[in-house]
Amino acid sequence: MINRRAGGGRFTTLSGVPVETCYTPEHLAGFEPARDLGEPGRFPYTRGIHSTMYRGKLWTMRQFAGFATPEETNRRYHYLLEQGQNGLSVAFDLPTLMGCDADDPLAEGEVGRCGVAVSSLEDMETLLRGIPLDQITLSMTINSPAAILWAMYLVVAERQGVDWRVLSGTIQNDILKEYIAQKEYIFPPRPSMRLVTDTIEFATRHTPRYNPVSISGYHIREAGSTALQELAFTLRDGIEYVDWALARGLAVDEFAPRLSFFFNAHNDFFEEIAKYRAARKLWAGLMRERYGARDERSLKLRFHAQTAGCSLTWQQPYNNVVRTALQAMAAVLGGAQSLHTNSLDEAYALPTEHAVTLALRTQQVLAYETGVAATADPLGGSYFLERLTLDMESGARDYIRRIDGMGGMVAAIERGFPQSEIAEASYRYQQAVEAGEKIVVGVNAFQCDDQPIETLRIDAGAGERQVEKLAALRARRDKARVEAALDALRHAASAGGNTMPAILNCVRAYATLGEMMNALREVFGTYQEQTLI
Amino acid sequence: MINRRAGGGRFTTLSGVPVETCYTPEHLAGFEPARDLGEPGRFPYTRGIHSTMYRGKLWTMRQFAGFATPEETNRRYHYLLEQGQNGLSVAFDLPTLMGCDADDPLAEGEVGRCGVAVSSLEDMETLLRGIPLDQITLSMTINSPAAILWAMYLVVAERQGVDWRVLSGTIQNDILKEYIAQKEYIFPPRPSMRLVTDTIEFATRHTPRYNPVSISGYHIREAGSTALQELAFTLRDGIEYVDWALARGLAVDEFAPRLSFFFNAHNDFFEEIAKYRAARKLWAGLMRERYGARDERSLKLRFHAQTAGCSLTWQQPYNNVVRTALQAMAAVLGGAQSLHTNSLDEAYALPTEHAVTLALRTQQVLAYETGVAATADPLGGSYFLERLTLDMESGARDYIRRIDGMGGMVAAIERGFPQSEIAEASYRYQQAVEAGEKIVVGVNAFQCDDQPIETLRIDAGAGERQVEKLAALRARRDKARVEAALDALRHAASAGGNTMPAILNCVRAYATLGEMMNALREVFGTYQEQTLI
Repeated sequence: MINRRAGGGRFTTLSGVPVETCYTPEHLAGFEPARDLGEPGRFPYTRGIHSTMYRGKLWTMRQFAGFATPEETNRRYHYLLEQGQNGLSVAFDLPTLMGCDADDPLAEGEVGRCGVAVSSLEDMETLLRGIPLDQITLSMTINSPAAILWAMYLVVAERQGVDWRVLSGTIQNDILKEYIAQKEYIFPPRPSMRLVTDTIEFATRHTPRYNPVSISGYHIREAGSTALQELAFTLRDGIEYVDWALARGLAVDEFAPRLSFFFNAHNDFFEEIAKYRAARKLWAGLMRERYGARDERSLKLRFHAQTAGCSLTWQQPYNNVVRTALQAMAAVLGGAQSLHTNSLDEAYALPTEHAVTLALRTQQVLAYETGVAATADPLGGSYFLERLTLDMESGARDYIRRIDGMGGMVAAIERGFPQSEIAEASYRYQQAVEAGEKIVVGVNAFQCDDQPIETLRIDAGAGERQVEKLAALRARRDKARVEAALDALRHAASAGGNTMPAILNCVRAYATLGEMMNALREVFGTYQEQTLI
Repeated sequence: MINRRAGGGRFTTLSGVPVETCYTPEHLAGFEPARDLGEPGRFPYTRGIHSTMYRGKLWTMRQFAGFATPEETNRRYHYLLEQGQNGLSVAFDLPTLMGCDADDPLAEGEVGRCGVAVSSLEDMETLLRGIPLDQITLSMTINSPAAILWAMYLVVAERQGVDWRVLSGTIQNDILKEYIAQKEYIFPPRPSMRLVTDTIEFATRHTPRYNPVSISGYHIREAGSTALQELAFTLRDGIEYVDWALARGLAVDEFAPRLSFFFNAHNDFFEEIAKYRAARKLWAGLMRERYGARDERSLKLRFHAQTAGCSLTWQQPYNNVVRTALQAMAAVLGGAQSLHTNSLDEAYALPTEHAVTLALRTQQVLAYETGVAATADPLGGSYFLERLTLDMESGARDYIRRIDGMGGMVAAIERGFPQSEIAEASYRYQQAVEAGEKIVVGVNAFQCDDQPIETLRIDAGAGERQVEKLAALRARRDKARVEAALDALRHAASAGGNTMPAILNCVRAYATLGEMMNALREVFGTYQEQTLI
């Protein structure tokens, strides 16, 4: 018999929060709609950041995509735009994410495998061919080398003749969550924070409509955190970026309007919606009370959501279509500005065209057929959801207070605090699955023979072609100009000024990603996580 | 550009009800939680009929299934039970639904095509082989010949040695919605109502845990009605059955506890949830105020839900998985007791094993992974949903009042009232789709080349095999006993007593479905709908 009760006979959320049999007005003692909810588009923004929400503009349907060479990925982008997608999101391969060129010996076998390989401005030009950057917003999932890939994008825009001031899009550039969860860092935390601050400062001055950081709970959750931890650590990361930008001499209302967020859309329908609503309310309060922000745009937490990759199963892969649809609905009912819906085959490989089209259609069915976009925050007032939202808010405040007490997020990371909190939550969840207290359909219950699915095969020659193109580029470019630009970058990094102008000059000279990363590594060193005891 | 606003720039529900930009406590003036909601398991049952709802018992996952011969369908039933389904639901083929034997010339080409062919007790015995009727609840979608198929089921139970008093299950047996929407009637309305009343009376006396009628809005909605019409006409049908049973001399609390309902789960998420909640509240009030019911069980509206077949598209059939998942969530959040989720290929054919397994997994993901079953009526208190629920209630009261004014539902049907209301709603919807005001993903927007899917092929020999088996049965059985039983049925039908004992005797003698229907037709005549002007 299947046990639906987690934690020894109690009913709980996916994150282990006890749930009552029923919620009534009595569960909302002290709740004041005017104060705790307000109106959509008004402080504290619990009900959404726009007064008309999706009536005015639907969320951006933005599928994360990238594989093999820039040529092949560019074709996929054009396909997705034809299918009605209205934003792009670049998935880079592992070598690129780790700042390695395609011809680096460490990259062998990984080039173009889990994303697209981009080693130089030439690759970025190919990737974005025929994409008008003044019309299509582009998101790039890149962290440690974010400043460099962003510089490549800026130079492509420059060459398209697009004024940087109209550019709209996002680089993930959230290095704190790399130390906390995703572990794709290179430099130590403090120089990494300095690079993020460089991009925030540069964006504030030169690309006023661009989001220089996407403060990301997604990967924290994928690492096994609870919904509350995802929320709390992400907001505390946001506080850390704000503190560093203020220390750089920026005024809060100069840069805070362009901070953006990225959350997971996991299985527990109501817990997820509560998380998004609490996130908006908390951030608005923090920005106003802690930082004295006055510009309304500084108070509004805008977020991208992605359905939970870790919830996908390779067993019975079409079940993932169901999971993704329900998770996506939670993101929409939670007021997301932008959404990626996972493809059913992502537990196996990068998505096929069939799979990614179905994932996009999932968003379109939600948007156009279900009616959920017709009114702002349709769940507002639900006794259960409002209780969850209040609890999520107070739980996050507690975590933030604790991390403040440790001296901030960099200090908390250095002592391993968020890492061990997540490890503990992840362990508890795994135990519950193993004990059959948490059911995963097709995995620990309802198993059956799977229908095989077709998966995308990455052309094995993609890596070789990238290496050849890179060799040709290295032979063709002006070597002296490259060397001079890299020297200037080393100098800027050690002198302590903003590194962005020097990075842009390296990019324009066709210095490669790996060359720039090496220059920075010489100055900043690399980081090894301390073993947690 | 896609127009998301129906009805000339206004935002509306799928049924055309205007929706506001946002709902606040001010939209609920006059709403009193204690009176309008109460607690789950307590009058007026808005929040559900059980105090602990799905904590105590999940909804029954009941996939409607049947094709080809009883042998093949029996194998599918065993497969579904192995996959974790916990109730069965029989889909009969068109000849059976119309009361024809497999060897009737009118049945040619249709035997076993859209459901399973059952012409005699022998077929029913085969269909239910190895299914313990004291443990598995069985639902049968059958209307005009409902009493006959039910009698076959009762005789199978008798031969399994199962006491009729423990039998639990449902026959649809809702003839009123046939005249209103589905059009599978044979006899005129009044003798048809008499047969329904015979089954209600017989069930009251002999099968106290069996539902002798499933009052069905599903087909009303599939015919193009609005959500409100589905609700109102279904409840008014229920009133009609109650009135006839009372006229038969039954006391309301004797039979009302076993009346059950069947609703559609259509696309508009909140409108559907409001419909289910309003249905419970209205029915409880009607039973208590109009009929003086005292037994709590008479007040509780129990319902089965099925996702909307008419919302499925043959274009891009995997989009149907998404639609079905979201519709199913609405049914669950609305407190359904039992649920059928459509298979993705039902716009093409009867479902393949792959497709029906995925449909069942959809329910299991909802039940075990999303957390929505952890608390009763999780949306209770939502300003938007409570407003929709109140409006649905008052709209249905208006319709019921109008039909009362016409002299009841049989009279309203005879003058074509519900039929023309539905036709008008259906026409308005079709116009909105044609004008592009309503978007159907893959149909009038986001078209692309479809991936072909495999569909179930019904063995062309199934019809022949049924005809052969029936010929052998006719040769083998005791002809004199059959004739005597059919004579007794004709006599019971014209004499005006309860026809069930005579039908049971025909079944035990292996009289066929067609023979019994012909006997009744001789007495009752047949019905032709008047052309509506």
